[in-house]
Amino acid sequence: MMRRDRILLAVTLTAVFSADLYFILLPKMRSKGLTSGHSCSCGPNKLTLPPSQGGLATPQLSNWTSAPLLDGTTSEPAYGGSKLVRLFSHPLYNIQTPALGPEERLLQVEQLIDYYRRKVSHWERHMKLYSLAAALANITVTNHEVTYDPDTSWLKFHLGINRYALYSRDDPTVLQLIKDMQSMTVISAGEGQMGFGASMVKPSGHHLKLALKMRNLAKAMFKPMRQQRDEETPEDVFYFVDLQRHNAEIAAFHLDRILDFRRVPPVVGRLVNITSEVLKVTQNEDLRAVFFTSPANNTCFFAKCLYVCKTEYAACGSPDLLEGSLSAYLPGLSIAPRISIPSPWIRSYTFTGREEWEVNPFYCDTIKQQYPYNSGNRLLNIIDMSIFDFLIGNMDRHHYEIFTKFGDEGFLLHLDNARGFGKHAKDEMSILSPLSQCCMIKQSTLLRLQLLAQSEFRLSDVMRESLQEDSLRPILTEPHLLALDRRLHKVLRVVHQCVRRLGKDEVITEDFFKSTVTPEAATDGTMQR
Amino acid sequence: MMRRDRILLAVTLTAVFSADLYFILLPKMRSKGLTSGHSCSCGPNKLTLPPSQGGLATPQLSNWTSAPLLDGTTSEPAYGGSKLVRLFSHPLYNIQTPALGPEERLLQVEQLIDYYRRKVSHWERHMKLYSLAAALANITVTNHEVTYDPDTSWLKFHLGINRYALYSRDDPTVLQLIKDMQSMTVISAGEGQMGFGASMVKPSGHHLKLALKMRNLAKAMFKPMRQQRDEETPEDVFYFVDLQRHNAEIAAFHLDRILDFRRVPPVVGRLVNITSEVLKVTQNEDLRAVFFTSPANNTCFFAKCLYVCKTEYAACGSPDLLEGSLSAYLPGLSIAPRISIPSPWIRSYTFTGREEWEVNPFYCDTIKQQYPYNSGNRLLNIIDMSIFDFLIGNMDRHHYEIFTKFGDEGFLLHLDNARGFGKHAKDEMSILSPLSQCCMIKQSTLLRLQLLAQSEFRLSDVMRESLQEDSLRPILTEPHLLALDRRLHKVLRVVHQCVRRLGKDEVITEDFFKSTVTPEAATDGTMQR
Repeated sequence: MMRRDRILLAVTLTAVFSADLYFILLPKMRSKGLTSGHSCSCGPNKLTLPPSQGGLATPQLSNWTSAPLLDGTTSEPAYGGSKLVRLFSHPLYNIQTPALGPEERLLQVEQLIDYYRRKVSHWERHMKLYSLAAALANITVTNHEVTYDPDTSWLKFHLGINRYALYSRDDPTVLQLIKDMQSMTVISAGEGQMGFGASMVKPSGHHLKLALKMRNLAKAMFKPMRQQRDEETPEDVFYFVDLQRHNAEIAAFHLDRILDFRRVPPVVGRLVNITSEVLKVTQNEDLRAVFFTSPANNTCFFAKCLYVCKTEYAACGSPDLLEGSLSAYLPGLSIAPRISIPSPWIRSYTFTGREEWEVNPFYCDTIKQQYPYNSGNRLLNIIDMSIFDFLIGNMDRHHYEIFTKFGDEGFLLHLDNARGFGKHAKDEMSILSPLSQCCMIKQSTLLRLQLLAQSEFRLSDVMRESLQEDSLRPILTEPHLLALDRRLHKVLRVVHQCVRRLGKDEVITEDFFKSTVTPEAATDGTMQR
Repeated sequence: MMRRDRILLAVTLTAVFSADLYFILLPKMRSKGLTSGHSCSCGPNKLTLPPSQGGLATPQLSNWTSAPLLDGTTSEPAYGGSKLVRLFSHPLYNIQTPALGPEERLLQVEQLIDYYRRKVSHWERHMKLYSLAAALANITVTNHEVTYDPDTSWLKFHLGINRYALYSRDDPTVLQLIKDMQSMTVISAGEGQMGFGASMVKPSGHHLKLALKMRNLAKAMFKPMRQQRDEETPEDVFYFVDLQRHNAEIAAFHLDRILDFRRVPPVVGRLVNITSEVLKVTQNEDLRAVFFTSPANNTCFFAKCLYVCKTEYAACGSPDLLEGSLSAYLPGLSIAPRISIPSPWIRSYTFTGREEWEVNPFYCDTIKQQYPYNSGNRLLNIIDMSIFDFLIGNMDRHHYEIFTKFGDEGFLLHLDNARGFGKHAKDEMSILSPLSQCCMIKQSTLLRLQLLAQSEFRLSDVMRESLQEDSLRPILTEPHLLALDRRLHKVLRVVHQCVRRLGKDEVITEDFFKSTVTPEAATDGTMQR
């Protein structure tokens, strides 16, 4: 027994030392190496710069175009400046995607322009008829003109979707789309044939969502504020009945961009006038019927009643203004079909049931042998998603969606993130099960997580800075921001445990685009120290 | 114009002076008069003393029995002592009810004893069969023995109900009943044939109530805590979807007793173990099915599902203990039928609808001519109830109940008060419409309200003291207690406006029991100064 204890002690000490070496000493050495410009062998000719319009929420980027960072000076500890700018200027965030062939783009220009033209003329015909009908029924509907504009932001956003991500980092379109969603005239509410499934006003009280259509025919899903920023999900509430939080939807978009996934459609906060921008423009009788005036004389609407109308499910303006998130719609399913697949790590959605992954520690071995997880990147993509969900605290990822066109190699869409950020003090480790059970992670993901764990780029700092650009700021409370750092370290710890158990080669999968950065180069620079 | 203005000024000054005289100078003079023992001409021989067991929540009363207050010394400003004891010792609270004939009691002893005996043997037979069935179905049910006890408190409470009130002030039974409800073993949950209507587990999420049966076959309605003491009803919530508050139910009982109405059945707070005292003793399959364990490992139950089960409607223990109110059941409808009558001042219970009383200032003139409000005390009882509801802030009094036996002269039961105490800062004047539109009030009610407006008996102070006796103290937050004083003054102001408009004789109706206190005597002492 005594000898066993001594061995245990020795093993523990070795583990502590290894952890120290791996997470503290090596990163410091790496950071020194980076600043002296030696370690990044991917080379200047393989990096692209952000364009003058910059990334989202980083207008300062334009100042950086004339001061190229090709020699790696981005990592210089210029602590006074913007950490977000520094992050997005880092070589890891400037790896060029290969030139896109038609098969690698979701949509073709002609196809989408044609679709858009038909939408505009349909709208015009429809409004003529509807105005007549409304006049007869004595309903006042504000009739907004629709303009056809081939340069419109949503069109460009849809055209930019490719096999690698929803948008490119250097695409100014997303910034414009966000501006448009934030300020453009709403011409109709409640109709939603495009994207996010097919339903109109989501009938569950917890999914009080509206589809808003803008003057340029852009569509966005509006999720109204249901909870104050500092309210936390009560501990007795199950994940599947938790409220949806508009600020979580906004924050998830920013986090996804900061992780460089770009799998969340653009989201922005907006103060919506639910009288003039919803009630007065909707042509939906059912939606009009759920509006009422509260005892405090505020305009409110509640979820479409299936059984009984409960006004406690209502969202109310003050007296008409209601804040909420607006998520850009993806291209309609008719032109860009998607498939929705249950997550292998789906939860039971019952009070007592447990799924196999919750009880079987070797669950991943089974999954790894099953199509489509037995080849390609699908399982690694699931693991990326689990890391994203763990960071935001989202337990509700029952399905994921992919664009049919890109087949099994397509990236996973991270839609519907409003159940994140419910409990800042809780780190729900079970969300990380795909990572902890499969012990696999993309090298690109790991490198970015390690970067964000460093004080020069600290995740909470870049998130705070990024969210500051939203008009509904503050989007997250400080405890929720700081929780991101704590959770990030927990993700890295899980990876570290896997590496110790199985070795680096088993755990870390090289995934850099062959045509631009050789896996060896990237690995040399960052992983093999 | 100038002369008109001068007249207006003179009228205003006169009004201000009159108000001052009526509400400040006269009460002071009266209070002086009372302490010198001259004004209470109802005389010592017409008063009874509280018995040694005292009123509820006033154990100190026993010390007072040997120091009779017959000479009016109760009103001496002994500010250090108990205001509640002083209140209940005041002559106004010691008016003897006439001796009760059989027709003036709700139930006869033999009838109730017989009913109780049958209940006990039914329970014993039923438990034998049920235990067998449960064993076969593999359900563990705790089987408690039931004891027949002719001295049991609920039996005495039921026997004490008479044409004047639910209980007598000097009845020690109520104190015992409260103790029993607070601590007695629960032998069954969820079954409710007696009292409060006939339903079992109330199916609406907002009415998460359980019927609990005690070892002595006493029954009580359990309303679990749904809201923290300092949480307020959001201003956009309609009265008819407001949560029910267990503390409001408790506080309403204490207030009713302090107003000397005694029209609310006894209510007490209790920490219930929902596992051992509900789940393990229920024989109701439906109730067992709504129990679950929350993510935080607490035992919870939710409302019986009509359409979809929403766990956000659940009440959860910590991990099993859940506080709630227990309201004593009234005698079963089979032996003491009651009738439920819509209040003439019922609200529309829709988002936009308005009832006639809300728009017609002469509504009461119509009501006064209609049966049963055209004679007797019914309208005055409605006005008492509106004062009670205004004080607690309850807008949800759509119906009232009376015992059929006492006919149109029966008192109104003030059941279901859990929607009171929702907004401490709001005084909903519309609740007082019966008083303000009819301009009538019972003399006995007015005298007590005036007493409670004085600093020696201040309503908030006696309520605070009374509620302090409940084991779930504090029952009300300070702002809610102080709101009682503010609202009381508003009630008195409405009465004063009526008196100024119509004269005292029109407004104040003498209602003292002829056999003990002559109206003149009571009036002389308090109203004719």
